Amino acid sequence: MKKPAVVRYLIHELIETRWSPVTFADRPVEREKLGSLMEAARWAASCYNEQPWRFIVASKDAPKDYERALACLVELNQAWARTAPVLMVAVASLRFERDGSENGWARHDVGMAVMSLLLQATALGLHAHAMAGFDKDAARAAFAIPDGFEPMTAIAVGYIGDPAKAPEALRKRDEAPRSRKPLESFVYAGRWGRVAPFIGDKR
Amino acid sequence: MKKPAVVRYLIHELIETRWSPVTFADRPVEREKLGSLMEAARWAASCYNEQPWRFIVASKDAPKDYERALACLVELNQAWARTAPVLMVAVASLRFERDGSENGWARHDVGMAVMSLLLQATALGLHAHAMAGFDKDAARAAFAIPDGFEPMTAIAVGYIGDPAKAPEALRKRDEAPRSRKPLESFVYAGRWGRVAPFIGDKR
Repeated sequence: MKKPAVVRYLIHELIETRWSPVTFADRPVEREKLGSLMEAARWAASCYNEQPWRFIVASKDAPKDYERALACLVELNQAWARTAPVLMVAVASLRFERDGSENGWARHDVGMAVMSLLLQATALGLHAHAMAGFDKDAARAAFAIPDGFEPMTAIAVGYIGDPAKAPEALRKRDEAPRSRKPLESFVYAGRWGRVAPFIGDKR
Repeated sequence: MKKPAVVRYLIHELIETRWSPVTFADRPVEREKLGSLMEAARWAASCYNEQPWRFIVASKDAPKDYERALACLVELNQAWARTAPVLMVAVASLRFERDGSENGWARHDVGMAVMSLLLQATALGLHAHAMAGFDKDAARAAFAIPDGFEPMTAIAVGYIGDPAKAPEALRKRDEAPRSRKPLESFVYAGRWGRVAPFIGDKR
C-alpha cells in the first residue's frame, strides 16, 4: 500500500513515500535492518555535535521488554502498535555533556535523529510510525531512564500489513489521504506572515 | 568534496553523504529547488499532524532581508555563513492550534522538518548547514516573530564551494573527518544503559 505525498515541488522518493501506518505485518524486522535504523539516527546533525539522543529498542523476540514498552503507550496507540514487531523510545539528553548546562536543542535534535530513522525505514522497505501518545513517566519507570533525560518519542517499526484485514477503524485510518498545510501558510520572507515570493511561482 | 559517513550498518546514500560544510560557492539556489526544500519540510511527521514549523527564507537576491538574517548569527557563524546564498530560520509554534495548550513536541517536530529539508538539499546537489548559534531575540526582532513562536534553527543553504580557496580555519573545518559516538553508547534494550544485543552482531 502506497500513499505518496501530493506535492507542488518534486521531493526525493524517500520523503515522498514515507508515511505512518497503523497496520503492521506479523513478520519480524531483521537485526541487520535494526542496525541500519540506528546507524541512520546516529548520523543526524546536532547542536555542537552533542548527539543528545538515546534509543531503547524492544522487539517481540524479547517479549517482556516488548510488553513493558507497549504498556507505556496510550490505549489508542496500544490498539494498533501491538501489531508492530518492534517498539522504540527515543530519549533526549537535556544537558550538554561538556559542562552540564541546559541543551535547548536537545528535543529538536532528537527529532532530527528520529526523522533520519523514519526515512531509513522507508529505504529498507519498512514503515516506522512515530508517536507522541505515550506516558513519559511510565517509560521512565519501565526502563530506568535517569534524571536529565526525557523520553520524547515512541516509534513502532515493522513491515506494513494488509489494512483490509485490520479492524475497520484502523483500515480507514490507513486508507485516509495524507494531508499537510499549504506552503503559503508557513514559508515566509522579509517578515513574519509574508509569503516567500518563490512559493508563488507555482500554484 | 565528499565526506561519506563511516558506518557499521548500511544506510541510505542521502543520509550517508549529507554533511554540513562551511564553504559555499558563489552561485544562487534555483527557486524551484527552494520550493523542493520547503516541500520536503512540509511532509515531515508531527505530533497530531500539527506541523508546528515555520520557515523564514532570506536569499541574497533580497539583500536587505539577507543581511538582517546574517546579523542574527553569532560572529563565528557569520564568518562562514555569509558565503551561503540562502539563509533560513526555522521557527517552532509552541502551542497547539486547536486549543492553545502547550505542544511539548514543537521543538522535536521542527527538528523532524529540518532534517527532512537537510536531506532534500543533499538530494538536489545542495548542502544545508543547520546552526544553533544565532541570537533568538535578534531573529524575533528582525522578522517580527510573535509570542508563542520560538526561533529554533538557522540554516545556511547553497552549493558547496572549494575549501582550498577558503581561509585556513574554514578549510580545516571542512577537511576534518565527520565523527559520531559509537552505537553502543546510545542504543539500549531492556533497561537504560544495557546495549541492545543486535548491535553486538557487528564490531
